[in-house]
Amino acid sequence: MTDKQPQIHNDKDARDKVWGMIKDIRIALMVTQDQTGRLYARPMAAHQERFEEELWFYTDINSPKISEIKDNHHVLLSYSDPSSQNYVSINGKAQIVRDRGKIREFWSEHLRTWFPKGVDDPNIALICVKVEEAEYWDSPSSTFLYAYGYIKARVTGERPEGGENEKVEFKASHG
Amino acid sequence: MTDKQPQIHNDKDARDKVWGMIKDIRIALMVTQDQTGRLYARPMAAHQERFEEELWFYTDINSPKISEIKDNHHVLLSYSDPSSQNYVSINGKAQIVRDRGKIREFWSEHLRTWFPKGVDDPNIALICVKVEEAEYWDSPSSTFLYAYGYIKARVTGERPEGGENEKVEFKASHG
Repeated sequence: MTDKQPQIHNDKDARDKVWGMIKDIRIALMVTQDQTGRLYARPMAAHQERFEEELWFYTDINSPKISEIKDNHHVLLSYSDPSSQNYVSINGKAQIVRDRGKIREFWSEHLRTWFPKGVDDPNIALICVKVEEAEYWDSPSSTFLYAYGYIKARVTGERPEGGENEKVEFKASHG
Repeated sequence: MTDKQPQIHNDKDARDKVWGMIKDIRIALMVTQDQTGRLYARPMAAHQERFEEELWFYTDINSPKISEIKDNHHVLLSYSDPSSQNYVSINGKAQIVRDRGKIREFWSEHLRTWFPKGVDDPNIALICVKVEEAEYWDSPSSTFLYAYGYIKARVTGERPEGGENEKVEFKASHG
């Protein structure tokens, strides 16, 4: 039993596929690490209509993930939807952005739920994740066998019939 | 806006709650890190009927996660179910187990899908994750507002009405 790597793509179709899956699953667990290498995760949703190899998240500047990202900017976004058996893992570099123009750019009024003071709240910050690599597992079927099948695809490198495990590489489009 | 921590529990009810959510969501993304601190994730399902502060996963001894776990045994299990708005993040220490007795203990015939040679395949190994801490976000409602509410609970430490963000500590019950 060999341990083959998934096929790697870096074309527009592959990026569109990843963005489509992210938009459908919507909520990621954002995984950060502290100075000791301990991992932390919390649910987060990206706030943007388009995808240009960056994902943008609103946060409170006082939240623990801010210091974790300052310590280590490598983050992972874990998207899972067991009902559709779609799984996406995204690697990227996170950056804290306090630029008021950017904060206004992605603002929408439903964000007032978290930031009752509105877009000018000085505690609002953005986390920009520059996507470096994405892996996804998807299934045309909703049967349980396929769910297992996709795990197999990763564990053994053998792709189950009808399923996909693909790796998508991203070139940074911004400095 | 303060950054309060979620309430911490270490009683049996809290552990049972975590195990119930894991069993329902079923598939985790297991996050490991390599020597450079880069994070990797892949879908995995635990293979056991009961939960005693350890989670057991079957794997191929030649898969990349084996060397990642040997480099750094801190792993994170990310469970998400957007349809029920349930999210669980589990921190633990992973250990590679090649004991044939243990491999037989959790074996069931559906595992033949990945290991066609059966339980005596010498490439089968187990990953035992000793759970150290779990955080969960759940919702009694399936409305979108609640999904956001749970994110808020983590970002700001303010618990939305009707929802929970709880932290559960585990004491290792085994050496």
